[in-house]
Amino acid sequence: MLIVRKYGGTSVGSRARIEAVARQVVELHGAGHAVAVVVSAMGDTTDRLLDLARELDAEPDARELDALLATGEMVSAALLALALRRLGQAARSWNALQLPIETSGRPGRARIERIDVTGLREDLALGVVPVVAGFQGRAANGDLTTIGRGGSDTTAVALAAALGAGECQILTDVDGVYTTDPRMEPRARRLERISFEEMLELAGQGSRVLHLRSVECAARHGVRLRVLSSFAPGPGTLICAEEDTMEAPLVSGIAFNRDEAAITVADVPDRPGTAHALLAPLAAAGIELDMIVVNAPRGGRVDLTFTVHRDDYQAALGLARTAAAGCGPARVEGDAGVAKLAVVGSGMRSHAGVAATLFATLAAQGINIRLVSTSEIKISVLVGEADLERAVRALHAAFALGESAPA
Amino acid sequence: MLIVRKYGGTSVGSRARIEAVARQVVELHGAGHAVAVVVSAMGDTTDRLLDLARELDAEPDARELDALLATGEMVSAALLALALRRLGQAARSWNALQLPIETSGRPGRARIERIDVTGLREDLALGVVPVVAGFQGRAANGDLTTIGRGGSDTTAVALAAALGAGECQILTDVDGVYTTDPRMEPRARRLERISFEEMLELAGQGSRVLHLRSVECAARHGVRLRVLSSFAPGPGTLICAEEDTMEAPLVSGIAFNRDEAAITVADVPDRPGTAHALLAPLAAAGIELDMIVVNAPRGGRVDLTFTVHRDDYQAALGLARTAAAGCGPARVEGDAGVAKLAVVGSGMRSHAGVAATLFATLAAQGINIRLVSTSEIKISVLVGEADLERAVRALHAAFALGESAPA
Repeated sequence: MLIVRKYGGTSVGSRARIEAVARQVVELHGAGHAVAVVVSAMGDTTDRLLDLARELDAEPDARELDALLATGEMVSAALLALALRRLGQAARSWNALQLPIETSGRPGRARIERIDVTGLREDLALGVVPVVAGFQGRAANGDLTTIGRGGSDTTAVALAAALGAGECQILTDVDGVYTTDPRMEPRARRLERISFEEMLELAGQGSRVLHLRSVECAARHGVRLRVLSSFAPGPGTLICAEEDTMEAPLVSGIAFNRDEAAITVADVPDRPGTAHALLAPLAAAGIELDMIVVNAPRGGRVDLTFTVHRDDYQAALGLARTAAAGCGPARVEGDAGVAKLAVVGSGMRSHAGVAATLFATLAAQGINIRLVSTSEIKISVLVGEADLERAVRALHAAFALGESAPA
Repeated sequence: MLIVRKYGGTSVGSRARIEAVARQVVELHGAGHAVAVVVSAMGDTTDRLLDLARELDAEPDARELDALLATGEMVSAALLALALRRLGQAARSWNALQLPIETSGRPGRARIERIDVTGLREDLALGVVPVVAGFQGRAANGDLTTIGRGGSDTTAVALAAALGAGECQILTDVDGVYTTDPRMEPRARRLERISFEEMLELAGQGSRVLHLRSVECAARHGVRLRVLSSFAPGPGTLICAEEDTMEAPLVSGIAFNRDEAAITVADVPDRPGTAHALLAPLAAAGIELDMIVVNAPRGGRVDLTFTVHRDDYQAALGLARTAAAGCGPARVEGDAGVAKLAVVGSGMRSHAGVAATLFATLAAQGINIRLVSTSEIKISVLVGEADLERAVRALHAAFALGESAPA
């Protein structure tokens, strides 16, 4: 099988770790697989380069910043190729200008359009392990670009798609995708498989295992994606199309996120354009909205509630107050002490009752639900931050997600 | 005037120094010159990357080592471009793959064949300062290459040639080329001008101001080369064709070198092939010979003396002994306590008497000359290391090279 393997910055953070990665790759190659590797920059290299740039200019030019940051992955790629060769494994480093990895869009947030894999196919045919610098690309004008934080995951998936790889393995510091964060619920269980759709909902809800974009890219191109630990052996979690999973579970996992703050604009006149008038100033200020809920009108008035990242809370509150002042006697209230949790599962498509179980469980715990938002395979609720842990653990048990309880 | 300026690793070794370099470039640009900049890697970056590679493999693969080392100059180029932009000066970084700078030959010792300056001309026409990563190139197969230590000087000269620049300025930590090392002779004087030929002889004799290859490249392409201090203002030294200098001085400077060791093979049979038989094993071992002198035969036998770098002394002595054993009753003697000095001057071409003055001066000092070797514009002599300083100062005075003596 042709496997594309991606190692993150922690996995290649030191000489010893690079050597350990090289041994893993040699082992995989020795087991009969063709292997292409994608690497991130070593440890804190990207942050260190970013600091250097910001010392020179607090808002460094995006093109030059990309040219600077892309060097970090080039260094890891060359070092891993050296380590592989030292073990007798033919290997060759590649950067984005060499392949090339063609990108479009803005520096710092470029999108991969096409990867020329001619050179990689030659390497693979000769038993050479190509080591590709992740996170970077080449713009149409020849500029080096970067594709945003977490971008090496996306490089790996795009490469797997271009090569028609059997699997794209993302090696990271966790050994798979869990039903919820094991630090909050010790009974959390590693999932053998999960569908792209579920993984997208989990990633979008703050589960930090994989970058949202890389999952989207894998889903679009049908790349089988596997999350593995680079430190402990194990099968990890396979992320694949829903038809490849067994019967879809009712609920696969519970994600949560403490970075939210809620703002309610109450008693807004119920007429066309009001929501736009209230929210447009936030969009103009670059503030992203997460949940947006408008209740049914009563007495010609509605309440509009939305959540923003906690860092944007004060700015959003100010903008909302100004905007609301133009909408008559609306009242603006905010709460930064909230948290969001989301119950995710493909089985929700065909099974009713998930919402009922969720509401019953939280009611039994005496937990007040501040906001509810649903999608096809997800129910998100906003609760008080102090209630979050209790809510997650109760729901984990209610949906029978855990390992069997210890005897 | 179009000026190509090269800043070395010390000149861009910190944030503050990069900012100082940016101010200098802005000043030059503001004075009406078009400016292209070539930079080396910051401070000890190249050595640090080399250490990383050698930790993984004591003899790292040359291709991967080049891919690794080339990132150092890319970092400086991007940072200097950022610093220039911060000062309001349009600037753009370029690496060797982007221009490209086409090279041939082995990794680590590649030769620049051609520089595509299309992009640079566009920058210059728009008032943008291009900042080019030195020391690197692109092989025909797309590999990143490096052109050897001191290579950024050569990048700058090749770039000046390709652009038809009016001057190539090498900014370094000395303020010009001196008649001899001022640390040895306080009366040493900065030269206003020196010819390529003289500079080549001085560089070849251990004067560390410029890399030999960059001077050769400048001479071949007729690039006017100026050495300037990046820390202190001043006109520096212009290195140019002999016809552009004023009347050629009898002697321009005195170079010296303490890194030599002498080996004599005495009483060698005077027949064809003997020198080859004695010296071929040293060449095969990669040991470079500097001076080689064979005296006139007496009694069918000759003495062959040569010098090597002191690091190679023991190896060379062993090889010479083995080789001499095959040449009959030859005796091998070595001396690591020697030093070489060279008197250089274009005027020697047309003026006799330099050698006579040299011998007379050293004789008056009671200094024994161990070996003499001459070229068209240079006389090199080997003396005991303990005599070196006295020899240099006496010759500096004898050829009237110094400033007028203090009152």
